[in-house]
Amino acid sequence: MAENVTITVDALGGDDAPGVVLAGVEQALAADPDLTVVLCGPAEVVGPFADAHGRCEAQATTESIAMDEHPANAVRRKKDSSIVVGCRLVKEGRADGFFSAGSTGACLAAATLVMGRVKGVKRPALGQVLPAYGRPVLLLDVGANADCKADYLLQFAQMGAVYAREIMGVPAPRVGLLNIGEEDAKGSVFAQEANALLRAELPEFAGNAEGRDILAGSFDVVVTDGFTGNVCLKTIEGTSSVLFRYMKDALMASAKGKLGALLVKGDLAELKGRLSPDTHGGAPLLGVRGACVVGHGSSSAEAVKNGVLATARTVRSHVSEVIAAAVAEDGERA
Amino acid sequence: MAENVTITVDALGGDDAPGVVLAGVEQALAADPDLTVVLCGPAEVVGPFADAHGRCEAQATTESIAMDEHPANAVRRKKDSSIVVGCRLVKEGRADGFFSAGSTGACLAAATLVMGRVKGVKRPALGQVLPAYGRPVLLLDVGANADCKADYLLQFAQMGAVYAREIMGVPAPRVGLLNIGEEDAKGSVFAQEANALLRAELPEFAGNAEGRDILAGSFDVVVTDGFTGNVCLKTIEGTSSVLFRYMKDALMASAKGKLGALLVKGDLAELKGRLSPDTHGGAPLLGVRGACVVGHGSSSAEAVKNGVLATARTVRSHVSEVIAAAVAEDGERA
Repeated sequence: MAENVTITVDALGGDDAPGVVLAGVEQALAADPDLTVVLCGPAEVVGPFADAHGRCEAQATTESIAMDEHPANAVRRKKDSSIVVGCRLVKEGRADGFFSAGSTGACLAAATLVMGRVKGVKRPALGQVLPAYGRPVLLLDVGANADCKADYLLQFAQMGAVYAREIMGVPAPRVGLLNIGEEDAKGSVFAQEANALLRAELPEFAGNAEGRDILAGSFDVVVTDGFTGNVCLKTIEGTSSVLFRYMKDALMASAKGKLGALLVKGDLAELKGRLSPDTHGGAPLLGVRGACVVGHGSSSAEAVKNGVLATARTVRSHVSEVIAAAVAEDGERA
Repeated sequence: MAENVTITVDALGGDDAPGVVLAGVEQALAADPDLTVVLCGPAEVVGPFADAHGRCEAQATTESIAMDEHPANAVRRKKDSSIVVGCRLVKEGRADGFFSAGSTGACLAAATLVMGRVKGVKRPALGQVLPAYGRPVLLLDVGANADCKADYLLQFAQMGAVYAREIMGVPAPRVGLLNIGEEDAKGSVFAQEANALLRAELPEFAGNAEGRDILAGSFDVVVTDGFTGNVCLKTIEGTSSVLFRYMKDALMASAKGKLGALLVKGDLAELKGRLSPDTHGGAPLLGVRGACVVGHGSSSAEAVKNGVLATARTVRSHVSEVIAAAVAEDGERA
């Protein structure tokens, strides 16, 4: 039997909320018998759903944060929004983790401001697990911190290594620094500084990773600043999407291609699904007290299910506590 | 009849030099009857080839720069290397442009130090034309300047707009700034500063481009610093390569897939070729006096041919001169 875990879920998060959120929560509850969900959202949405489902509680909220609102301002102003309330219940100990497929910026701001940072962590970082060839890779920061210092990257690497061990099941993770050359001395002034710090302080450091190494399966964790990480993540999504479009066009252009396409359609759709962000259960925000996972805005019900289950797994693996210990240990050493 | 153009070619550039270089030069000479090539390399390589081919001159050199040498040091020390000599002949007016598939760093250093910068250009930038959906896109800087200031990016954008008009044939290019959000106020401090400058100074500025927009076909030029650009370029290459590997695995896993794969193999190979860097004739270095194009280290003979022809096209379109005029005009306005 797994540890009992309570997760708050933002019923209003995502392009197709609340429909897909409710469907995803239903699936998550069915998949995990030791999971309780506190559903945050309008009373008329969360009430009936909680009444109809075991291990689900309703937390009525009166406000919502739109995708295009200024994240920090919205979080400060809308105290009764589903995102802020979801985070507050974790802060108050009434839940262990929070999941939303809503505004990434608002979730980051709420988790950081309301749940608070793990002691010693300078900046929480948003990670994204990607389907690298042969083994998954955690890329971070993918957007929480557009401007970084080298010592933030050291902490991102420490937190990433904890996540790789506890959640991805890699006993001795290889952590790379995203850079524009393999040799330690390559790259921008910032990248060189980060390289030197990682080389000196991080036992798991495996050297620089170039852009082509992210998905090649040679690293378990790749760290970078939130600007480069976000550009990279969206470049991967964009490249994949354009390639599939090109492929469709190429196959539809000939009779032989069309026939072949009929035969390979299922395999390619399966592949596309496997590569999609939906499969990976959202992006963990590392370095906040309690678990926080943010789903893609276009999350399907399955993505919501996977996101909620990933949040529960993060709680059960005590990722926050292990990060606190790793960061404290490093602080003592320094 | 096209303008007579003389291009110096580094016979030692690339993983499979000199074989593929000679084959590529032969193809380029056949394709362009108004092209003369000055082949720089060891006498025993370039002499016999020049003797056997019309419009080809041999320039014997005694040194070579390896891929892993420190670029600027190697260029300063090895005055009789094929790369330095190739650039010097352009500087001396004995040739109009230089092509190499050798060390990108050494080519950048040699072109900048030996050929020199266009008057007013603060930093030459390396561009890469990519097969975006529906229309090509020029991404720059992809690695010449790891550390940039906002005013460099303005010049990259001006040079990119010139290249798009003169070489890519786009009369009114849309120039985007690579950033992590669409709104002007998004991104790092650096990106916000660059956005404000582009908004104020660049008539062709079409706003921020996110990572997923690079290949989506909505911009003709995307500018960024050389660190982010290089990471992006290699991320695109890596994503494409991993996707094709995944696809092969997926199709080989089932009998139906295998049969389908037989039918679509030709179309996919053709697509892979179309997306490959080989097809695009190398990366132009913009902002140096005279044309300089750098090919991929793994260039095939066809890639060398395309690279040499692209160098000739850059000369005939007077890209350097138009850039000089654009930059001077902006200097006056400022």
